[in-house]
Amino acid sequence: MTPSVAVFGAAGYTGALAARLVHRHPGLALAAVTARADAGTRLDDLYPHHRVPLTLEALELDCQADGLDAAIVAYPHGAAAELVAELRARGVGKVVDLSADFRLRDPAVYEQWYRPHPTPELIDEAVYGLPELYREQIRSAELIANPGCYPTATLLALAPLARAGLIADVVIDAKSGVSGAGRAATDKTHFVTVDENVSAYGVPRHRHTPEIEQELAALGAPVKVTFTPHLLPLDQGELVSCYVTLTDPDTPPAELEQRYQDEYAGEPFIELAQTPPGVRDVRETNICRISVHRDERTGRAIVFAAIDNLWKGAASAAVQNLNLMFGLPEGEGIAA
Amino acid sequence: MTPSVAVFGAAGYTGALAARLVHRHPGLALAAVTARADAGTRLDDLYPHHRVPLTLEALELDCQADGLDAAIVAYPHGAAAELVAELRARGVGKVVDLSADFRLRDPAVYEQWYRPHPTPELIDEAVYGLPELYREQIRSAELIANPGCYPTATLLALAPLARAGLIADVVIDAKSGVSGAGRAATDKTHFVTVDENVSAYGVPRHRHTPEIEQELAALGAPVKVTFTPHLLPLDQGELVSCYVTLTDPDTPPAELEQRYQDEYAGEPFIELAQTPPGVRDVRETNICRISVHRDERTGRAIVFAAIDNLWKGAASAAVQNLNLMFGLPEGEGIAA
Amino acid sequence: MTPSVAVFGAAGYTGALAARLVHRHPGLALAAVTARADAGTRLDDLYPHHRVPLTLEALELDCQADGLDAAIVAYPHGAAAELVAELRARGVGKVVDLSADFRLRDPAVYEQWYRPHPTPELIDEAVYGLPELYREQIRSAELIANPGCYPTATLLALAPLARAGLIADVVIDAKSGVSGAGRAATDKTHFVTVDENVSAYGVPRHRHTPEIEQELAALGAPVKVTFTPHLLPLDQGELVSCYVTLTDPDTPPAELEQRYQDEYAGEPFIELAQTPPGVRDVRETNICRISVHRDERTGRAIVFAAIDNLWKGAASAAVQNLNLMFGLPEGEGIAA
Amino acid sequence: MTPSVAVFGAAGYTGALAARLVHRHPGLALAAVTARADAGTRLDDLYPHHRVPLTLEALELDCQADGLDAAIVAYPHGAAAELVAELRARGVGKVVDLSADFRLRDPAVYEQWYRPHPTPELIDEAVYGLPELYREQIRSAELIANPGCYPTATLLALAPLARAGLIADVVIDAKSGVSGAGRAATDKTHFVTVDENVSAYGVPRHRHTPEIEQELAALGAPVKVTFTPHLLPLDQGELVSCYVTLTDPDTPPAELEQRYQDEYAGEPFIELAQTPPGVRDVRETNICRISVHRDERTGRAIVFAAIDNLWKGAASAAVQNLNLMFGLPEGEGIAA
Repeated sequence: MTPSVAVFGAAGYTGALAARLVHRHPGLALAAVTARADAGTRLDDLYPHHRVPLTLEALELDCQADGLDAAIVAYPHGAAAELVAELRARGVGKVVDLSADFRLRDPAVYEQWYRPHPTPELIDEAVYGLPELYREQIRSAELIANPGCYPTATLLALAPLARAGLIADVVIDAKSGVSGAGRAATDKTHFVTVDENVSAYGVPRHRHTPEIEQELAALGAPVKVTFTPHLLPLDQGELVSCYVTLTDPDTPPAELEQRYQDEYAGEPFIELAQTPPGVRDVRETNICRISVHRDERTGRAIVFAAIDNLWKGAASAAVQNLNLMFGLPEGEGIAA
Repeated sequence: MTPSVAVFGAAGYTGALAARLVHRHPGLALAAVTARADAGTRLDDLYPHHRVPLTLEALELDCQADGLDAAIVAYPHGAAAELVAELRARGVGKVVDLSADFRLRDPAVYEQWYRPHPTPELIDEAVYGLPELYREQIRSAELIANPGCYPTATLLALAPLARAGLIADVVIDAKSGVSGAGRAATDKTHFVTVDENVSAYGVPRHRHTPEIEQELAALGAPVKVTFTPHLLPLDQGELVSCYVTLTDPDTPPAELEQRYQDEYAGEPFIELAQTPPGVRDVRETNICRISVHRDERTGRAIVFAAIDNLWKGAASAAVQNLNLMFGLPEGEGIAA
Repeated sequence: MTPSVAVFGAAGYTGALAARLVHRHPGLALAAVTARADAGTRLDDLYPHHRVPLTLEALELDCQADGLDAAIVAYPHGAAAELVAELRARGVGKVVDLSADFRLRDPAVYEQWYRPHPTPELIDEAVYGLPELYREQIRSAELIANPGCYPTATLLALAPLARAGLIADVVIDAKSGVSGAGRAATDKTHFVTVDENVSAYGVPRHRHTPEIEQELAALGAPVKVTFTPHLLPLDQGELVSCYVTLTDPDTPPAELEQRYQDEYAGEPFIELAQTPPGVRDVRETNICRISVHRDERTGRAIVFAAIDNLWKGAASAAVQNLNLMFGLPEGEGIAA
Repeated sequence: MTPSVAVFGAAGYTGALAARLVHRHPGLALAAVTARADAGTRLDDLYPHHRVPLTLEALELDCQADGLDAAIVAYPHGAAAELVAELRARGVGKVVDLSADFRLRDPAVYEQWYRPHPTPELIDEAVYGLPELYREQIRSAELIANPGCYPTATLLALAPLARAGLIADVVIDAKSGVSGAGRAATDKTHFVTVDENVSAYGVPRHRHTPEIEQELAALGAPVKVTFTPHLLPLDQGELVSCYVTLTDPDTPPAELEQRYQDEYAGEPFIELAQTPPGVRDVRETNICRISVHRDERTGRAIVFAAIDNLWKGAASAAVQNLNLMFGLPEGEGIAA
């Protein structure tokens, strides 16, 4: 029988997109979509282009969790953990959490960047949901911490160098479209603020930093990173420009490229390019497009990775994880 | 002595721009800027690009109106009338109101589109502040109803045809940048809503309609207009496309053009163009750029007019009016 | 066996998209893609986001037409007719022409707006490829004149009123994204020209006018239309705002809406909306989203229709036609 | 008598803007504007928003250089040097060259990044036209090498650190609007290419690199820089994000800020901000807005600088230089 999936918090950008992807997925059934302020509104009134003909419901787990096979939780950081715990307690066997709540393995680090962790006992259960790094663990996981959009692009950009022990230091300059800031209407997301503009934010410390460092360390590169995001006048799309001081500055360019080809051979959603990728190349796809270059003058490696922040950076990655967890073809419902 | 001018409601887009124009004006002195929610904030923190080094104050007319020579009121429709009345009562001799509160001469019409008029006794004092139509009255006015942005562009587009009795019917399709929707952060002004989008709003009746009809009638064209605005993914700029059924469909194109040249000869802020104007042509200027065409197949006249909605559609028009009221050169402080 | 389809002129925006749609189509096989200046380039180098792993070939019909089941011709107006004739002569049984060459049934009208028609003898063979109007004829057609993007949106907006004999007169104000201007890099398509701008073009007579009038007449509304397109700072998307003087100005709004519901009941790619559609609602879909309103003050009907100019306005419409011609499910390969 | 200034190459974006600034300048007279392909066109037809009522002339130095007091040369790199030499030979006493031809002091470096220098004998005459660094030399200069837009922002961002000997290494990630790519209509400047996109270009070596390194060395920081520009979907504006490894990583943030305040005290066109600047803050101004931050986790300094690439990055900087050369107030004609 087709597994049933509910999306909790489907009024936001990532939750709504997750609902659309599940709704159209040939191997999954969208059981319910929930929202707080927008409960009672049809999702296809709120987001006509997603064409999901369901009404957003207020949270009522007695109904929504009953017999549910899987959940995608698209709640704000901090608010997600408790819902995840409740879903697990009610026997929902597969939960993908889009928040940061289960990404950091050390509750002390979480507390430093967010607040005291409400359900630290669940952290160990969670698998970091980046299939290119943790595919096997994801297959058997019951709780997925879906990566942040910036860590997704950054880790995919740097994994081959990290595994090779080549990263001595790295500066990450990230550029994101406005959908990454979420649906809340604020001065910062007002069209007039963003249009014809570009500026950095979260300076000098952005919350995605510890997540990047944790996973780089796990890959073999225990470095402190400089990570600075910028807001761009575009909707969907994220580019990270990574400037890597190599442990061996004489590494030939061909060797760098070869490492990427080896690392990502057979990966269905990684594209290697000769020229720097643009975010348009991956818009509305689950693909991460990467190019690696070596600056002979400075010996640095420069790596670019482009993703769609709402897709590979959140919602389609969640579906990719569900596919793995259910033993479905990894690209079902999200292939271009 | 340089006349002192205060801007009431300077935290919004038009008020802030008015403050900047007054601040840089060689013949006017910016005495104060007020705001509600943003009181206490420096205006150059809120709008760095305006570079007005004043702090927004809460409304305290005992201070702000004392010895004040003129006021620009940039309050929401409905809220402006009472402040205007208070300023007049305190002896402020020149008031320019950017709201709709004194534009409609018939309080019954005002009530139909807004609410009961709070100060109907002041309506007769107000002069409609479109210098190209009412320059002499403006010079001696004490209260100016600054026109709406859409009426400004539309009336300048149609005045020559209206005066000639040539307008039998007119469809006005208007296109505006997002700054016209104001500073309030809402779903409608969120970057992600507007970007890569275009749609009509205020269908089928927009509040600027009666203002347009009132002034067209005063010019000799007592017609009911179809007026439909659209929101565009750009910041500042407004284009009206006017499709006019002529009372004499055989009017030759050259005669149409001649009427515009005659009407606007010597007008410092009207530009006549051979080809359809773009809003970039007038960005950050007090200029209205107009082209007139005749569709030989249908006999219609097609007139386009482009303005910057924040400038000629609001703030620089207010300063143009102040210049006339103070006997200053009409273009001082607002010439390109 | 899966029918083979070649796209001739696949280096332009519509041809490239058509190639992508055919390439991913489960019931069609992309046999070849051709180009002039870009021959030798891989299509996925030129358009990475389409991910079509074929190399653009120079035109060589001995190879490309041999055994070919169908062709999509994405040549410029004027250049397409001769290729279409050649393909028909070589026995290609199904040809969809994206140009204007076979849209106008009267070669004299074609000559007036373009040039003398090179293959007038083929005009009678062509079926106007708007499935919502000519579905049955399309099923058995061998040559399809794929409609222009503006006529597609306009005719879908007006067909219910035209068939009811309700159109006395109509003004069509159209707004298009830049992709509608094609891939040629010119002053007009330069980012700096278009960004933060909007202006009309093709004033007062645009080449899509006779196509609109021909089809409106066929529907029962033999009117001369005023049609004025505008260029907007967005990529894909087209909105037409139609201002209709009704033959019966007292037609109640509910009757107008009912006519649309009746006309489009069961249509897979028509969406009726209560509020004015935005082009984002239909981006990258084959859907036309329509709303109809009545302005009680003037008695006019106002109809908005939004499409994606590259999809429903060109490439996905071509595939919809091929589906009908091959007896495939109408939405295969183009459903959202 | 008002000095006469001609702009050579006024059909491009920077030349046209320079013409406008000179035309409106109260202390300078615009004597002529020249162009190649656009000779014969009125500049206000080509760029209506600049409102310069002159006709572009073909180059005829017998006329244009006769009695000319100053010239702004807005020719492409490589083509400018010979015109500059000719103007100098004809006795034009003040020449500001917007190209790269006289920026690099070492002809061998120039040759490595461009081609053999056509007039190496003139290089020593040239003063690098960044007033914040070379104000006194500019006052008496006869030939100004106007800095590139990226070097302008970068050097202003880094000068206080460079002079203090604090720069051990620096990564410069630059973001530019499309006007920086010039007026040529190409695939790269097509609206559809740039819109909703961002990507790096000139990887791994961009021609502005040696100019930055030369001037950093002159300031006391002889480092090899990593410089990577990105193209953004906006018109005018440029942001550089500089990641500096400090020679003393324990430098306290307050000391960093103090160095900027000391360095730029009294500078009319430098703004120091507490929060990262956006390019909108400086649009259509001669201002460079800078913020400096220290990342305590890595010890790096992060410096942002925003300019308008066409203004402070080219045309208004040229006028600032002319003001200094003519002994005019430095901000005349370019103050906000």
